[in-house]
Amino acid sequence: MHALVYHGAGRHSWDEVPDPSLQDDTDVIVGIDAVTICGTDLHVLRGDLPEVAPGRVLGHEAVGTVEEVGPAVRQVRPGDRVLVSCISACGSCRACRRARYGQCSGGGGWRLGHTLDGVQAEYARVPFADWSTYRLPRSVDDESAVLLADVLPTAYEVGVLNGHVGPGDVVVVVGAGPIGLATVVTARLFSPGRIVVVDPAAPRRDAAAALGADVVVGDEPDSVQELVASLTDGEGADVVVEAVGAPESFELCTRLVRAGGRVANVGVHGAPASLHLESLWGSDLTITTGLVDTGTIPTLLRLVADGRLDPTSLVTHRFGLTEIGRAYDVFARPAETGAVKVVLSR
Amino acid sequence: MHALVYHGAGRHSWDEVPDPSLQDDTDVIVGIDAVTICGTDLHVLRGDLPEVAPGRVLGHEAVGTVEEVGPAVRQVRPGDRVLVSCISACGSCRACRRARYGQCSGGGGWRLGHTLDGVQAEYARVPFADWSTYRLPRSVDDESAVLLADVLPTAYEVGVLNGHVGPGDVVVVVGAGPIGLATVVTARLFSPGRIVVVDPAAPRRDAAAALGADVVVGDEPDSVQELVASLTDGEGADVVVEAVGAPESFELCTRLVRAGGRVANVGVHGAPASLHLESLWGSDLTITTGLVDTGTIPTLLRLVADGRLDPTSLVTHRFGLTEIGRAYDVFARPAETGAVKVVLSR
Repeated sequence: MHALVYHGAGRHSWDEVPDPSLQDDTDVIVGIDAVTICGTDLHVLRGDLPEVAPGRVLGHEAVGTVEEVGPAVRQVRPGDRVLVSCISACGSCRACRRARYGQCSGGGGWRLGHTLDGVQAEYARVPFADWSTYRLPRSVDDESAVLLADVLPTAYEVGVLNGHVGPGDVVVVVGAGPIGLATVVTARLFSPGRIVVVDPAAPRRDAAAALGADVVVGDEPDSVQELVASLTDGEGADVVVEAVGAPESFELCTRLVRAGGRVANVGVHGAPASLHLESLWGSDLTITTGLVDTGTIPTLLRLVADGRLDPTSLVTHRFGLTEIGRAYDVFARPAETGAVKVVLSR
Repeated sequence: MHALVYHGAGRHSWDEVPDPSLQDDTDVIVGIDAVTICGTDLHVLRGDLPEVAPGRVLGHEAVGTVEEVGPAVRQVRPGDRVLVSCISACGSCRACRRARYGQCSGGGGWRLGHTLDGVQAEYARVPFADWSTYRLPRSVDDESAVLLADVLPTAYEVGVLNGHVGPGDVVVVVGAGPIGLATVVTARLFSPGRIVVVDPAAPRRDAAAALGADVVVGDEPDSVQELVASLTDGEGADVVVEAVGAPESFELCTRLVRAGGRVANVGVHGAPASLHLESLWGSDLTITTGLVDTGTIPTLLRLVADGRLDPTSLVTHRFGLTEIGRAYDVFARPAETGAVKVVLSR
């Protein structure tokens, strides 16, 4: 088969590689029908994640058709159309029994395209299939489904649910990349009062406005703070979601939130941030961090099937699977291409 | 009357001053029966709170008898025995209507002994009496009640409730001063599995053990982390309460908590802390900050009345009100005196 192979920092290619085969009783082999590219894949390509070995097949978001199942698999059968979650979960460790699949200590967690070969390929081996794949209803198409493998549940679980977005809330989303935009889309399920999106790039602000942000603004801290104050009678936002992954962005979030409000960090950080406890100790704040569990995939699938949620609004570019080199190029230069999510189909 | 008057950094005395009088319709005048001293009072005396003007009467925790009531007061009458909360609350601003009395923007918040004359005196004017005083049942004595003015509700609301302590939880309390010890006492209401108390001072660790801590340990980070790991099968604590107010102590808390756990900050900080998002972004943490609202005083009073909670276990020294100079001396040198809470009675 062919697959997108990482060859060390800065190098990748669409190579011919051996077909994957069942290794454990709980594995399935999936024929890939659609995949997408994540910002994390770009980090891997840049060499930011040294645990990813050269030779690794990338990708952790896919829709496909089950080809083979291991003898212990109960939930899916050959021929089933499935969503492959970005999180593999053993199902029985302490974390999994609490439904914290992202924290799986039984061999799961983020494995595909990281420490196991991934799904940007014609076929993929998916471990722990009963907890790592979801059978798809006919009414949900591949393009909608593939966005439920990572970006939508991440924004929904780690941003919207952790932040307890509620009706009437003023919600600020800092960062309008794919995760920030998916936060806008899923926050709307809770009927917030206003969604404010902060991003330095005008095209991303436009995308946010098109997806339902009520107000968009650049990221100059004083002007953002003034805007949020003007929208909240000086109080600050009820919920602020960090969707960048940078210290200055996290610190901006803690300036924008009201006393008694919530800051939900979704961004992946590489450095510590300052937590200004000298001014925040008495502010009744709740700050959360989190890795997606993807436990909400069934809920999100139902919303898509019922027409209540349209993940395809995030898709800006479509390619065939063999055009993946070009797709990476487009996705890596969003300022020029306007790319949010790119979908590749067989 | 006589009162403890602040005369600028390092200077205070028990002076003759004018009796307080009603100024607003919602005021009451209370004859003071018992008071206590708070760590915050020591900060005031050191000049750490420049907003406290020389000439200010100190103190924000009292039990007394109502002498006079303003015409708009409905909840208390002359002769009533009342608890005076450390938080004055207007009752009708946005924050008060959410029961976030600590955040009162209508003229309340922490005012007594701060920006209004306080209760370490023979008489005190208490503003917004309907939301700032609580009538006491006969079954609760002065000494128990006065500890419900600040230290117990602070530990309970900002530590135990914000940290969502639950049955079976491993709870670590960093800091065994009065607030940390009150956290131990009130955490026990939720039947945690183990309470671990961290403090560098052996006498404070002994006090913690006497009050119900299951394990006590010094504050050397590596050994604390090893101990907590050994108690939790390597996972980390379910809840960690910061009761010191120092960056290194907050950072220790974030090292001790398990993925999916809670860090409740109670300490009053004067400097920022590092939040190590590079390792914590994916750990499903909840971090809270808070100022006490004292909305739990009625609950705590009922627990005391029913014999389910004994705040007097925190009292190490007792004085007459006129001995307040000596009481401050004892309270300010806990390492030598073993002082936790000192109670002064008329």
